[in-house]
Amino acid sequence: MKRSERLVAMTNYLLDHPQVLVPLPYFTKEFDAAKSSISEDLDIVNDMFQKQGIGFLETVQGAAGGIKYIPKYSDKNSKAFIDHICNRIEDPDRLLPGGYLYMSDLLGDPETIRNIGKIFATAFAQKGVEYIVTVATKGIPLAYATAQIMNVPVIIVRRDPKVTEGSTVSINYVSGSSKKIQTMVLAKRSLPEGSNVCIIDDFMKAGGTINGMKSLLAEFNANVSGIGVLAEAEDEDEDRVVDDYISLIQIKDVDIKNRKIEVLKGNYFQN
Amino acid sequence: MKRSERLVAMTNYLLDHPQVLVPLPYFTKEFDAAKSSISEDLDIVNDMFQKQGIGFLETVQGAAGGIKYIPKYSDKNSKAFIDHICNRIEDPDRLLPGGYLYMSDLLGDPETIRNIGKIFATAFAQKGVEYIVTVATKGIPLAYATAQIMNVPVIIVRRDPKVTEGSTVSINYVSGSSKKIQTMVLAKRSLPEGSNVCIIDDFMKAGGTINGMKSLLAEFNANVSGIGVLAEAEDEDEDRVVDDYISLIQIKDVDIKNRKIEVLKGNYFQN
Repeated sequence: MKRSERLVAMTNYLLDHPQVLVPLPYFTKEFDAAKSSISEDLDIVNDMFQKQGIGFLETVQGAAGGIKYIPKYSDKNSKAFIDHICNRIEDPDRLLPGGYLYMSDLLGDPETIRNIGKIFATAFAQKGVEYIVTVATKGIPLAYATAQIMNVPVIIVRRDPKVTEGSTVSINYVSGSSKKIQTMVLAKRSLPEGSNVCIIDDFMKAGGTINGMKSLLAEFNANVSGIGVLAEAEDEDEDRVVDDYISLIQIKDVDIKNRKIEVLKGNYFQN
Repeated sequence: MKRSERLVAMTNYLLDHPQVLVPLPYFTKEFDAAKSSISEDLDIVNDMFQKQGIGFLETVQGAAGGIKYIPKYSDKNSKAFIDHICNRIEDPDRLLPGGYLYMSDLLGDPETIRNIGKIFATAFAQKGVEYIVTVATKGIPLAYATAQIMNVPVIIVRRDPKVTEGSTVSINYVSGSSKKIQTMVLAKRSLPEGSNVCIIDDFMKAGGTINGMKSLLAEFNANVSGIGVLAEAEDEDEDRVVDDYISLIQIKDVDIKNRKIEVLKGNYFQN
């Protein structure tokens, strides 16, 4: 196989297997090429991935070594994308009764979801995350997009137990905004004891839901090493009960009377 | 930029933009290369994509022309993957009380989900699908994985209206297996009138849920041009109310007493 052909095949393989350690013999065998040729190929791929702002190839030395594609999206691309999303959310047509904002179109768009996943995956890349945890329903696409890039499984917390989940652990928690008692359940066999997890959700106000998830995860002795929300908004009546999180977007003000929405980049971009 | 570098960049760009028409001037400008060089590059990419069984590049002629990556996963890869999944589902440890099977681990694994999405996207590639429709909760990851590859948005039907959805259309339907009256809602502004859609779900027994979705979609004058379910199982007490669907897996028999599960490839592979 020619170098040009190998490069197409390798790029595809590495993009499709993020965070997976690929031993060099895999490539030499697959492409019937010398180790030195493969090494040169990988240098070219690594160089281009960095130039394009999509990550880099990590070399792991030794007998059990190989190459690993670490997705890492450039700050420049991330900021440009979030600026664009902020603009889109400021559209007054999104206003719903009660000052809520319609965002299902954004959460249904595959490219938007993929880009959000890239940012979260970059933010939590160094945390040794073993599972992404989210709660039904709107956080699910974001959790999957992040999990695809981090190459870890997704665990979905539900509001109601289902017969297809087997035995579950459930907790009651107080929703921060509405002060209602709510329930969350997680299938017992879905998460091994003591796992290192990251929580992803679409929206956070006072943080009651995220706090509920933390309590539920404590029942599994899980270590929550990261919390990421797409959008956060302030709650006038309630102090936030979660503080160690990152947000990509901040809904600063919703002026129903004048139909004006003010949206800023989230705390992830403000350090 | 050298050919070798261009090939890495182009492969990444095309894989990240499935079903998008890219005008040739985009590449000549981005990579500062002659049209003839870019054409040769694209021939190499097209050739390798086909050899790897991940699709092909379609050339659209004319002033508004360009190149489009059409993902199309090979029958061989699809069958091998589904055989592997069938084996995994036959594990008796999946048995839950009532003869249900635990499958959340499969539906949480990013590579499994991605592969299922590839198969559905290939199956419905020629249908001119504009939206993927699914129902909360378990179908969501499959719907997103399919949508990523088809590059169309996802619409999520819910069991309960939510304040962040705005006005909704709701229907009542009879669940095929339990004969209970249930409700489904879809946000009015989520789906334009007369859209061409494809329904994706994780599981079908008598087909009541899918039928409910069809009724709900009829309220939007949508044309359902495809229905795909990951797994189907027979219902002893009830004839199937949906017939124009594809399934990837068939749960043939669940013998609780002897802890034996029999799983076959679905109807998609039996033509």
